[in-house]
Amino acid sequence: MKKTFYLLTVTFLLLSCNLASKPEQNSLLVRNIDELNNFINKAAPGDVIVLANGIWKDVQIEFYGNGSKNKPITLKAETPGKVFIEGTSFIHLGGNHLIVEGLYFRNGYSPSTSIIRFKIGDNKTAFNSRVTSCVIKNFTKPNRLTNDKWIEFYGKHNTLNHCYISGKSNDGETLRVFQDGNEHSSNHHQIVNNYFGPRPRKGGPRAETIRIGDSKTSMSSGFVNVSNNYFEACNGEVEIISDKTNYNTFKNNIFYKSEGSLVLRHGSFTTVDSNIFIGGDDSNFYGGIRVVSSGHWITNNYFYKIKGEEFRSPLAIMNGIPMSPLNRYKQVTDIVVAYNTWVDCKSPWQIGVGQNIKSMNVLPKYEIRSAPPIRSLIANNLIFNHESDDEPFVNHDNFEGILFKNNVLDNSDKTFTKYGVFENNTIKMKQINGWLYAPEFPQPILTKSIYFGYEFDKIKTDLFGTSRSQNSIGSISNFDTAEKFVINNNLYGPDWFSSEQRTTSPKIFKTSANGNELIQNIAEANSGDIIELTDNLYAIDNSIAIKKDITIRSKNNAQIIFNNPQETPLFEMHPYSFLHLDSVILKGKNNQLAFKPLDKKMSAAYNIDVKNSTIEGFGYILKAPKGSFTDILKFENSLIKQCNNGIVLAAEEKGDYNAEMVTITNCKFESVSNNVVNFFRGGYDESTIGGILSINNSTFINCGKFEENGVLLKTKGIINVDLTNNTFQNNPVKYVAVLWGAKNNIHKENILINSGEIKVEEQQKLEILY
Amino acid sequence: MKKTFYLLTVTFLLLSCNLASKPEQNSLLVRNIDELNNFINKAAPGDVIVLANGIWKDVQIEFYGNGSKNKPITLKAETPGKVFIEGTSFIHLGGNHLIVEGLYFRNGYSPSTSIIRFKIGDNKTAFNSRVTSCVIKNFTKPNRLTNDKWIEFYGKHNTLNHCYISGKSNDGETLRVFQDGNEHSSNHHQIVNNYFGPRPRKGGPRAETIRIGDSKTSMSSGFVNVSNNYFEACNGEVEIISDKTNYNTFKNNIFYKSEGSLVLRHGSFTTVDSNIFIGGDDSNFYGGIRVVSSGHWITNNYFYKIKGEEFRSPLAIMNGIPMSPLNRYKQVTDIVVAYNTWVDCKSPWQIGVGQNIKSMNVLPKYEIRSAPPIRSLIANNLIFNHESDDEPFVNHDNFEGILFKNNVLDNSDKTFTKYGVFENNTIKMKQINGWLYAPEFPQPILTKSIYFGYEFDKIKTDLFGTSRSQNSIGSISNFDTAEKFVINNNLYGPDWFSSEQRTTSPKIFKTSANGNELIQNIAEANSGDIIELTDNLYAIDNSIAIKKDITIRSKNNAQIIFNNPQETPLFEMHPYSFLHLDSVILKGKNNQLAFKPLDKKMSAAYNIDVKNSTIEGFGYILKAPKGSFTDILKFENSLIKQCNNGIVLAAEEKGDYNAEMVTITNCKFESVSNNVVNFFRGGYDESTIGGILSINNSTFINCGKFEENGVLLKTKGIINVDLTNNTFQNNPVKYVAVLWGAKNNIHKENILINSGEIKVEEQQKLEILY
Repeated sequence: MKKTFYLLTVTFLLLSCNLASKPEQNSLLVRNIDELNNFINKAAPGDVIVLANGIWKDVQIEFYGNGSKNKPITLKAETPGKVFIEGTSFIHLGGNHLIVEGLYFRNGYSPSTSIIRFKIGDNKTAFNSRVTSCVIKNFTKPNRLTNDKWIEFYGKHNTLNHCYISGKSNDGETLRVFQDGNEHSSNHHQIVNNYFGPRPRKGGPRAETIRIGDSKTSMSSGFVNVSNNYFEACNGEVEIISDKTNYNTFKNNIFYKSEGSLVLRHGSFTTVDSNIFIGGDDSNFYGGIRVVSSGHWITNNYFYKIKGEEFRSPLAIMNGIPMSPLNRYKQVTDIVVAYNTWVDCKSPWQIGVGQNIKSMNVLPKYEIRSAPPIRSLIANNLIFNHESDDEPFVNHDNFEGILFKNNVLDNSDKTFTKYGVFENNTIKMKQINGWLYAPEFPQPILTKSIYFGYEFDKIKTDLFGTSRSQNSIGSISNFDTAEKFVINNNLYGPDWFSSEQRTTSPKIFKTSANGNELIQNIAEANSGDIIELTDNLYAIDNSIAIKKDITIRSKNNAQIIFNNPQETPLFEMHPYSFLHLDSVILKGKNNQLAFKPLDKKMSAAYNIDVKNSTIEGFGYILKAPKGSFTDILKFENSLIKQCNNGIVLAAEEKGDYNAEMVTITNCKFESVSNNVVNFFRGGYDESTIGGILSINNSTFINCGKFEENGVLLKTKGIINVDLTNNTFQNNPVKYVAVLWGAKNNIHKENILINSGEIKVEEQQKLEILY
Repeated sequence: MKKTFYLLTVTFLLLSCNLASKPEQNSLLVRNIDELNNFINKAAPGDVIVLANGIWKDVQIEFYGNGSKNKPITLKAETPGKVFIEGTSFIHLGGNHLIVEGLYFRNGYSPSTSIIRFKIGDNKTAFNSRVTSCVIKNFTKPNRLTNDKWIEFYGKHNTLNHCYISGKSNDGETLRVFQDGNEHSSNHHQIVNNYFGPRPRKGGPRAETIRIGDSKTSMSSGFVNVSNNYFEACNGEVEIISDKTNYNTFKNNIFYKSEGSLVLRHGSFTTVDSNIFIGGDDSNFYGGIRVVSSGHWITNNYFYKIKGEEFRSPLAIMNGIPMSPLNRYKQVTDIVVAYNTWVDCKSPWQIGVGQNIKSMNVLPKYEIRSAPPIRSLIANNLIFNHESDDEPFVNHDNFEGILFKNNVLDNSDKTFTKYGVFENNTIKMKQINGWLYAPEFPQPILTKSIYFGYEFDKIKTDLFGTSRSQNSIGSISNFDTAEKFVINNNLYGPDWFSSEQRTTSPKIFKTSANGNELIQNIAEANSGDIIELTDNLYAIDNSIAIKKDITIRSKNNAQIIFNNPQETPLFEMHPYSFLHLDSVILKGKNNQLAFKPLDKKMSAAYNIDVKNSTIEGFGYILKAPKGSFTDILKFENSLIKQCNNGIVLAAEEKGDYNAEMVTITNCKFESVSNNVVNFFRGGYDESTIGGILSINNSTFINCGKFEENGVLLKTKGIINVDLTNNTFQNNPVKYVAVLWGAKNNIHKENILINSGEIKVEEQQKLEILY
């Protein structure tokens, strides 16, 4: 095969009063992987390898080279954002002084442990190298349970900057810094100016957006700098960031509506300064900063409407385990929390989180977090609530090891004097934008008495970089600077890429009584479109594949009758799908399933929202296979009857689970013989807080008659269960439910008639995962 | 009381091209504690407070002040070494930029937790302060079991230099660095140019000479510098130095005949460079470097005749506990051992020390050291033996996690090829002094192939500071520099103090047959003198106090008959005493004791050496009270008969014990009814390796007839027991001994006639102490 190389030689002349003029630089355009490999092999310091615009499919690039500080070797897109890396692809770097720039990873996944990796194979480590201005979007493994990390840091002095990364739904952190070995610790990596876009809930552990180190390398230092990044909807698990080595810095990051926390997990001596945590009323899972171990300085941070509880609370200072094993919870000691502001958060300060002395009998000794924080200081902080908070400070154990000094609380019309840790007062705060409130000055209560702790002279500036020479309680010391603050989108991600999606009006397909037309319309529709059933009866012979966000609705309760004789689902749910059903009747046979995700390749979650509908006669309403995950599963104002089985989400093990939010409201279940609900989590890992099952205002009649273990609603291992205001009548079971009291399983106002009882076990004996 | 202050104003004019001339300095002579306190209260930067020559008794000095970098506040002796601090005294420092100089602590002890302390009370911490040119000698607590530390470091940037410290025999480290709290961690303390003189064996844990931090602060950094110190006979326990925090440095220290190791215990990333370990043939307890945890660099060290085993071996790299609790054993990872030299050591390299998988059934999971070292490198080292060593490398578990490169072994006439970790070769080494051997150059085997590991460019010099530009395997790369090396006594301790003791010839007292004269001569004798019994019979009515090193001998087996009717000892042993008996007969009654230390105030050890003698008729030969300790207890060629009890050393608990070296050789025990030997250690802490009981070539006849638990020689909890070549005849017991197989308890060639058996329990169930 004849190879054609396009060689562009460009001569630069840089004039500078300090530097010698830059020598010639070779810029080499390559059009395929062979050319690319060839040039990589030949590359000399200063060379620039340019990938031609277009789609590069199945390219597994091992970029090895040795540039120098002033003459790095660069691998870049011809036009940033016009070079698409697709299929089974990755780029791994090894050597010294390399730059990768402008690539867009999409429509595929890495066949390796990672997409971007600062090491090739076992020992060709990269140093002083940088990946910049790249995008990775939905480049997720086909099997959700297969682990990878999209970005693996090894070596020292490497950088990821101005990248956009979103849509990882499989097992494994989005970005991981490895510190196993002297070549990789004290590494001073820079993770700066990136946009970490949405990462969906994973349903289980190992879904952090960033993780630095692990428990086994937690004695090593990182000096990793994570600054000026934007995190949006990073909902993978309870930890957005898991900091597990020492001396790392998190500064000037914005966490926007992310259902997790910045967690100082195993690392010590972390700097957490001038970060912004933006929550809202739409979720109780947005988190703040969770603290374990020693010597952290948490200063100048701003929290708005963070309402997460306990592990996800705005400031969660944990209890430790005495003489903790390496992978559990070191006692909190010697931390400083100063000059932070919480606005409209719920119970923002929680001290001794994770205290579990009551579990002494069901957990081993080395799981009991009985050591409260000590030798710590919380000073000069501000809590401001437009509506009063009943408990702005939650004491889970003993807070006497913490010195509280000059913390001001404006709790609206209700002072909070319990524990004596606040100065209650009225503060004038002015709204600057949707989430930012700043105090106006002068306000003597904020400036007249400021506690000066050990080494507080090191806190020189406030949240927005204003000098603290004119000092104030809270993260903002100067109103004028705060008033001028806007989130600068140019700071985050590549300049050529925008994460904003255009919104178009949905198209409405009017579908007459013809099963094939229904199937065809669904296939033709774009995500967001609506299928409106205009007739009464639709006979369907084969499964309908749902691959996008589709609404099927009718005005007159149209019936969809499923005739396929096989054990097959009426609706086959694909990754990223969302099926909305409104006012329809689904009728099936007792070997069929109403809904079922794919058996394999469920790379991302599916969602189902059923309202005002009837489902009858099926073998299963839903049966989740292993590896599938539904983020939202919702039944409202609907009737489910005459089915062998109900909703079965019980195929996982080892801490994973099949669904996050399962909601049943105003429904009636009648004559469902088994598994009315079977929502199961095998194995316990507290780093995830799910799933969530809510059953309200619903009725269950004549259900569970073949239930072998005698439990109607099976919820084993699920963390949040709420059974409220339901009626259970004539269900021949021993237990309507067996709840886990210690893990937010609650029941109230239920009526039980001839239906067994609801039992609460405060502590359940757990299979521990680590 | 009228106070007279002596004010000497001295004007200095310092000429310097960079600094402004120094202002006036006040030098204030004080004569008593009131004057001293008064001046301390008034002291201004630059002031010098001078303690008048003489004895300062019961002075508890709290030296608080705030000097500045260029104008410290100094508290010094009028003449260094002529100011004696005695009685119940201490000096504690608080504030900034203080200097203490030239004090001599003796004849007393601190009533506090410490003698020198860089903190006053709870929170007046000292920073940037220095204690220099002081001596602390035998300033030890009256009760050996009462804990103190002689020197307590708090704060940051404090220094102890040119001090001499010896004779601590009570519980507690000689010097401890505390890192509990941000004021005290990352402290950069300097412990340099000190002379750590003899510290006797303590018989239990907590007798390190230096300890930095503890397990609970082991995540914090120290940056403590321990350099250019001399350690002589620091025998307190198995750890001379216990390094428990991160980033500390041990450089250019000399460890001379010290029965312990430099132990990298909980800390990580320690630098151990260019230290010299000098042992000898006279002890098998001299140790080297023991390694736990991560990231240590052990380079350029020199070891001569270090023959300690396992925990004390010249290089002991330990096995860790998987996910170790904070206070146990982290796995060894990422260490580098390069360019070191071992000359005439015994089994110098031991990998996986402490592996105790066999104890799985008697110890909890978190005690099992099953994790071998990983990701480590041992390169460019030299082992040289004048006589071949059967096992220069001992593999306790699995050494595959270590990369061995270019290590050269000259094992005399015997190559060692097992494991393949050495290049066997003949090296030319030339003796420079009693302990130093250096290779002559050129020797291609040492210079032609040197492994260049990651960051080896940082190892710029060799043991004696010669540049490694002309590089070589081993710690010495240049013969000429090595040849010129002498230990420079001026480097260590105060210039006004010498630790060398003059030796005088002993005086011999000829003592005729008069008990009172015997007592009087003993009282008059100086330490080292000899009492010679010239007649046959000495009747003694009262206990004889032994307060020094005394020999009592006779040529014709003189009898000493003890007539006191009370339950009292013939010889009352005091601290620091050593009683030698040669060819005497001691006769007592069955409520008396032949030997007994004081019940209280046994601040230091006593020693007894009995040979060619007979002891008969006593209630006890020896009964050790709690708090007493005998370092050497020796019976040789002697007969012990007709006693109710033999040697009882069983009053301690919690890991302490009453004796270190107990030796019985060529003796006969006849009709000793109970406790022929009862040597007990309650509770197990592996950080000490004792006691040591050796019974050889001896005979036991008709003993143990009232032994309640049926064991003749009780050795419960004792680590080293050797029963060899003894005869046991007609002793009505079930067991002659019950030995602890796993802990170096051995028996061989014993004859047992009508005397029960010797049982070996490989594992004993232990009470763990921590």
